[in-house]
Amino acid sequence: MADRFARRIPEPTVFRLPVYQRALLALSTDGVPTVSSAELAEAAGVNAAKVRKDLSHFGTYGTPGTGYDVNFLLGQIRREIGLDREWQVVIVGMGSLGHALARSQRFSTQNFRAVALFDIDPAKIGEETAGLPIRHLSELPAIVAGISRSIGVIATPACAAQDVCNRLVASGVRAMLNFAPAILTVPHSVQLRQVDFSVELQVLAFYIAHPEATAGPEDASRSGL
Amino acid sequence: MADRFARRIPEPTVFRLPVYQRALLALSTDGVPTVSSAELAEAAGVNAAKVRKDLSHFGTYGTPGTGYDVNFLLGQIRREIGLDREWQVVIVGMGSLGHALARSQRFSTQNFRAVALFDIDPAKIGEETAGLPIRHLSELPAIVAGISRSIGVIATPACAAQDVCNRLVASGVRAMLNFAPAILTVPHSVQLRQVDFSVELQVLAFYIAHPEATAGPEDASRSGL
Repeated sequence: MADRFARRIPEPTVFRLPVYQRALLALSTDGVPTVSSAELAEAAGVNAAKVRKDLSHFGTYGTPGTGYDVNFLLGQIRREIGLDREWQVVIVGMGSLGHALARSQRFSTQNFRAVALFDIDPAKIGEETAGLPIRHLSELPAIVAGISRSIGVIATPACAAQDVCNRLVASGVRAMLNFAPAILTVPHSVQLRQVDFSVELQVLAFYIAHPEATAGPEDASRSGL
Repeated sequence: MADRFARRIPEPTVFRLPVYQRALLALSTDGVPTVSSAELAEAAGVNAAKVRKDLSHFGTYGTPGTGYDVNFLLGQIRREIGLDREWQVVIVGMGSLGHALARSQRFSTQNFRAVALFDIDPAKIGEETAGLPIRHLSELPAIVAGISRSIGVIATPACAAQDVCNRLVASGVRAMLNFAPAILTVPHSVQLRQVDFSVELQVLAFYIAHPEATAGPEDASRSGL
């Protein structure tokens, strides 16, 4: 069923699913049985009409006067995102950022698990972080071959990022998160997302430099999304 | 002039300015005098029509057959973003991520400079990272009072993020980048952006789980934007 609906889901909705998921997880942990679209909207930092529209993409409608069943909706959204399965994360580039990512608890809480760490610096090979040994990049193909549902995380300097990206692709990795400040090219069969906080800093600078350009309270940036 | 045009600049264009800026900086460093919209588009991972439309918001049009003057356009975009001035970054939360951010060279290359680091762990106070001492959070107001054009970076656990955010706001910080996986509320006078790689991982998982939902080659995610 998920696949039948997915084609019509706009990208901004896809980006809000993790936010709904986080809000619902908190409600579920607190034992809250139902949630209105207004409450879910507040927790997610969007408006209630957007919540109803987003969830309607999955054929999910709340009960008038009661709202949505928290655990049912949480399960549905987690299945939609693919969080009902474990994703195995391989991190390439074990500088400060790579170490921070390896130690991050955010992977584990969402069914993403760091399973292998790589670098090319001989001084780092064999070192342990977060219970995992740092391996030489040349071992990447053999390690990735034994992994299903792998996600590659690139935390190298910009100059090395495309080469690492190519090696991940050649090893069969079909999803990548790039933290290097470089624009990477991948085949169409590969999913690539970029996390670049330098871009976010520049966007902040732009809006401080141009206070009149700031969007209204409905804009997602107001609530940090 | 920048302010006169800013009102009309759509948010996606604002997000592409740092990418154009990076591409132009590389061309300028290589001594390339002019660039066509097609070349700039390729470097930025968007299409040429989008480049021309984006730049037209600033009243900038390339010369037919020649393209854009690299250094002129670079200077214009850097002024638009506000990169012709120095931004002083204060980082709160000196765990692995805070350390990685403090050591990051991306701040300095773009006129963002980490100037103060804060934590509440007595074991960390006084420690030095990237040439800066880690100070107790209670010192935040006094330090921030001496800073103009400050940007606050929140790298604390989720549970502490809103409190830290409130302290930054109370100290007069008007721009914040939040790395904690928490939705924060700020007054309308404050700019807040969120960097959450767990959301990016979930978006990746969604698109791998739904390969038919993948957008076409024009979609920005193809080139990692």
